Amino acid sequence: MDNYNFDLELAGRGLYELIADLYPIHRSIAGPGVRKTLEKLKTYVPIQIFEVPTGTRVFDWTVPQEWDCRDAYIKDDTGTRIVDIHNSNLHVVNHSIPFHAKMFLKELKPHLHFLVEHPDWVPYRTSYFERNWGFCLSHRQFLELEARGNLEYEVCIDAEIKDGSLSYGELFLPGKIDEEVLLSCHICHPSLANDNLSGIAVATYLADFLSGVDRYLSYRFIFIPATIGSVTWLSLNESHTSLIKHGLVLAGLGDAGRITYKKSRCGADIDRVVAHVLRNSGDSHEIVEFSPAGYDERQFCSPGFNLPVGCLMRTPTTGYAQYHTSADDLNFIQPSYLADSLVKTIAVMKILDQNRVYRNLQPKCEPQLGKHGLHLSYGKKATGFDQLAVQWVLNLSDGQNSLLDIAERSGLLCETVKAAADKLNQHKLLKECPQ
Amino acid sequence: MDNYNFDLELAGRGLYELIADLYPIHRSIAGPGVRKTLEKLKTYVPIQIFEVPTGTRVFDWTVPQEWDCRDAYIKDDTGTRIVDIHNSNLHVVNHSIPFHAKMFLKELKPHLHFLVEHPDWVPYRTSYFERNWGFCLSHRQFLELEARGNLEYEVCIDAEIKDGSLSYGELFLPGKIDEEVLLSCHICHPSLANDNLSGIAVATYLADFLSGVDRYLSYRFIFIPATIGSVTWLSLNESHTSLIKHGLVLAGLGDAGRITYKKSRCGADIDRVVAHVLRNSGDSHEIVEFSPAGYDERQFCSPGFNLPVGCLMRTPTTGYAQYHTSADDLNFIQPSYLADSLVKTIAVMKILDQNRVYRNLQPKCEPQLGKHGLHLSYGKKATGFDQLAVQWVLNLSDGQNSLLDIAERSGLLCETVKAAADKLNQHKLLKECPQ
Amino acid sequence: MDNYNFDLELAGRGLYELIADLYPIHRSIAGPGVRKTLEKLKTYVPIQIFEVPTGTRVFDWTVPQEWDCRDAYIKDDTGTRIVDIHNSNLHVVNHSIPFHAKMFLKELKPHLHFLVEHPDWVPYRTSYFERNWGFCLSHRQFLELEARGNLEYEVCIDAEIKDGSLSYGELFLPGKIDEEVLLSCHICHPSLANDNLSGIAVATYLADFLSGVDRYLSYRFIFIPATIGSVTWLSLNESHTSLIKHGLVLAGLGDAGRITYKKSRCGADIDRVVAHVLRNSGDSHEIVEFSPAGYDERQFCSPGFNLPVGCLMRTPTTGYAQYHTSADDLNFIQPSYLADSLVKTIAVMKILDQNRVYRNLQPKCEPQLGKHGLHLSYGKKATGFDQLAVQWVLNLSDGQNSLLDIAERSGLLCETVKAAADKLNQHKLLKECPQ
Repeated sequence: MDNYNFDLELAGRGLYELIADLYPIHRSIAGPGVRKTLEKLKTYVPIQIFEVPTGTRVFDWTVPQEWDCRDAYIKDDTGTRIVDIHNSNLHVVNHSIPFHAKMFLKELKPHLHFLVEHPDWVPYRTSYFERNWGFCLSHRQFLELEARGNLEYEVCIDAEIKDGSLSYGELFLPGKIDEEVLLSCHICHPSLANDNLSGIAVATYLADFLSGVDRYLSYRFIFIPATIGSVTWLSLNESHTSLIKHGLVLAGLGDAGRITYKKSRCGADIDRVVAHVLRNSGDSHEIVEFSPAGYDERQFCSPGFNLPVGCLMRTPTTGYAQYHTSADDLNFIQPSYLADSLVKTIAVMKILDQNRVYRNLQPKCEPQLGKHGLHLSYGKKATGFDQLAVQWVLNLSDGQNSLLDIAERSGLLCETVKAAADKLNQHKLLKECPQ
Repeated sequence: MDNYNFDLELAGRGLYELIADLYPIHRSIAGPGVRKTLEKLKTYVPIQIFEVPTGTRVFDWTVPQEWDCRDAYIKDDTGTRIVDIHNSNLHVVNHSIPFHAKMFLKELKPHLHFLVEHPDWVPYRTSYFERNWGFCLSHRQFLELEARGNLEYEVCIDAEIKDGSLSYGELFLPGKIDEEVLLSCHICHPSLANDNLSGIAVATYLADFLSGVDRYLSYRFIFIPATIGSVTWLSLNESHTSLIKHGLVLAGLGDAGRITYKKSRCGADIDRVVAHVLRNSGDSHEIVEFSPAGYDERQFCSPGFNLPVGCLMRTPTTGYAQYHTSADDLNFIQPSYLADSLVKTIAVMKILDQNRVYRNLQPKCEPQLGKHGLHLSYGKKATGFDQLAVQWVLNLSDGQNSLLDIAERSGLLCETVKAAADKLNQHKLLKECPQ
Repeated sequence: MDNYNFDLELAGRGLYELIADLYPIHRSIAGPGVRKTLEKLKTYVPIQIFEVPTGTRVFDWTVPQEWDCRDAYIKDDTGTRIVDIHNSNLHVVNHSIPFHAKMFLKELKPHLHFLVEHPDWVPYRTSYFERNWGFCLSHRQFLELEARGNLEYEVCIDAEIKDGSLSYGELFLPGKIDEEVLLSCHICHPSLANDNLSGIAVATYLADFLSGVDRYLSYRFIFIPATIGSVTWLSLNESHTSLIKHGLVLAGLGDAGRITYKKSRCGADIDRVVAHVLRNSGDSHEIVEFSPAGYDERQFCSPGFNLPVGCLMRTPTTGYAQYHTSADDLNFIQPSYLADSLVKTIAVMKILDQNRVYRNLQPKCEPQLGKHGLHLSYGKKATGFDQLAVQWVLNLSDGQNSLLDIAERSGLLCETVKAAADKLNQHKLLKECPQ
């Protein structure tokens, strides 16, 4: 994983194009939208698609029915579609029950959702676990309807809710050891670009990258519907979770905000690694404490699992008004931000993959480095980081400190420490400790 | 203890009146003053009065004789009382031996105590463990005496020092469990309002309040002479102290200063609870480290006991010049400050009483809250603290974290966390852990 | 060690004179320079001189040959010495192989070392473990040579490299217990005043001081060539190192900078003691974390030893340009700075020597101090540090806290705490705990 060269511009463009391709698909937690999405991802990386039948008990939850929404509109008496999901699939409340009737505006109103503060935006609403229906529209559209008076409208949701299965994708990239890194993103949102097509795209590109390099750790990517997807996956893979040594939920990675990392519940190594990468990136960033609000880390970090999983984002969902509205569109994200998120995620993976614990084989005094061709000239001032890194690695490699520990205590970059350890390893001055 | 409504003004007035009633009594560490004081308190709450005979060995100490001072004065040759304890019982050095003689000012002087920096104030002095006598007067009075020249005076201390007993009061309020909270205040000071009639009044009102509510913990109030009282009580109740899980010394609670909390020696839960209450009060406050100078926490926190006892004050004794002078009078304290001290002390008791450790009965992933009637709408932004508190309680209730721990980690109020836990408990999603 | 009175000016002058005496000697890691230096020190304190034969294996190293340099110069065709070690022994690269030839400037150049940034200074260079030769000169001298064109010069290094031994000095001052403090300084540098004649002088005066006082701990001083000296000493004394409970490397103690302390690798008591002394000195100072770059603490703190050894300096080597140049001369150091370093080092030794753990023999409540002649008047405000120290010592002496711990928690000076403990000990209120 050592030498990778990214054409950042190219990567950014690719990430953006994947998102643009996925954007129009009308996704929900189960049904054809998710399936189409997974099929598209399969053209990038060889994910395996799993189908979990409706009704399957998964802990306290039950796998829901599929939702297939073919059409949804509000038509006036001239036959003009006032609200039409062909303009935006956010217009229908996601997972609405089928519905077809004529009704006056007054009766329709309780089923209309809009945002007074953002008159041109359409909100994103769902009704997964409650049998209900509704429409989302801009406040401007709503005001126009009201201005017409209490007219009658044809209201139609041509949808089907039926038994089927919940779909999710998984890609396992085996490494030299069985211990693995879990990468998770949610795939159930319709036309929302940052939340979370950005996470899907970064995960896909990361998977593609990791497919092509030597891996020490194993890597498992899961592309899942939010909440019910992680609940389902954890339920089906419970016995396996002990192998998960690090994990990241990838979400909201395309906007202009600085990177935000939310720490794991258990205070895992992943927290220190991400902090190391962000601190040394020179870029503004924020690290926030774990909380049980958020994405699927809520499930991974539930007390019965308590997995070492954090969440990598740019602006947190509470930090941008566009979140869960039609304004989270293809203009809200940019190739360069996506590429930046990808590069930082790769940097994290690299440190995780390369982290080791060594034992100095000459622990009593320093070895005579000159004799080993690792010359330190006496009477000269310190000659740079590499030699200092050699000294740090020798000094702290007592079988207790990992390369990450050494980097943190010395203030050196992980890669500088790793390079020093490699050099010392070549000269048989270190021995890797079993973990 | 959940719902209490205080008429703050009424409470303040009551606290102040109790102090005004107790103020004139001429107290010492043992004798009629303490006994009168305890009898008065008995009209408020059913304290039990204990008498420990003079001469009883209590650890390294011996219970002293009683002191009964009927009169004390300095009279000039016209028969006019220049210094007279009927004006202030601080005028006689507390626990002075009986004395009656005519003497010239020159001989008298070494027995006179005054404060040059505060010419109108009379200092408070004691001579408990040394046989001595003396008078305290204002510097102004002293200068007037000096101005008269070396005249002869009749000096009289009509007092008795005799075998008897040390009196203290105790009130035990049993709860559902035997573990208890110790509340202690000293009762040996004569006419001093803040130090410590304020503590006596707050303790009495707190005892009255706790008498009237459901209690989970047990509460023990002790009204004791300073130092020798706590030494005596600990000596007589040594085997019992293991039940004390929290404790507060209440002292100096009526002045205008902000609340000061002095932490326990051992870093107990009480420290975190008081900090939580003060932090969330929005009021200015100070938290200071434990030190072995101060009130009876010196004994409770001696290394052989090391009890979880802190000290709640307003201005610390070193922070106000009126301390141990006649200026610590009924003008120095105010009903509103007393009421504020009481309310904050009750808030501390409430958190102590309600603190529990729970175990999430659905620890693997979140339960489906909708199913349990604790609906979290998907696709909406976080809808307020209560739902977040539910998530925090579920997430951290792994049998290790108390509600206080959860409040501290989440930054939520203890009462918000408690309400969420109660709701989850009702829905059988939590189980209380034995402590 | 309690009462010492230093005439600071006298001590400073003595330290400076010793340095001035040692300054001209042409030292290297092994050979006559080191031997002359040790003989000089022997006139101050009875150090024992050890000789370790060339070729002895010491861990990963081998004891080197001796270097004896009788003369070294660059002579022009008029016979004038352009560069001459009689002007400064820094002119010859230390441990240069013997060499004598005529050569043109062009060939000579690769063997010339100078500092462009400091045109008047001669750098200090060594070639201990590589067979090489060279000259150091000021940049000004070099430019003059260049201005003459490519002339021919006689280049001579009249030196011998031969089997012999590495010399070091050791002084052991036994105390009441076998546990010891290690004091180490390096003795291999030629005419460099701060690095490290200052350390040698301070160590010598400290040894002289400690020789004359009652010692609880034992003290071991080692005067060793840098790196190879500590490697050698550790190799020969490995089984003994478990007795080393505290240690200091003394280096760079004569310059005008504030004191800098570099902490031990293992976070030992010595770190807290030095911090205590520096904090309470009122002088500006700096405490830096351990790093494996520096002086012989690199060896003492190698992972196989991990000894509790820190390093006391004034300005760190990276903080002054004069380091390892001819400008680190007798003008760079001052008697007053040397004396200040000595006094602070003694203060550290005093705390180490006096630190004990006690158990309060009356741990339940405070003892009645009046009864024991340690009277605390009631009704008076706190009467100063001594009484407070008595209370702190009683309160924290539970067999766990040392006097240093008590000083740190109370914020009192170690000596104040020690005085209180002594008083309580006299009154049989404390008992010393075996360590």
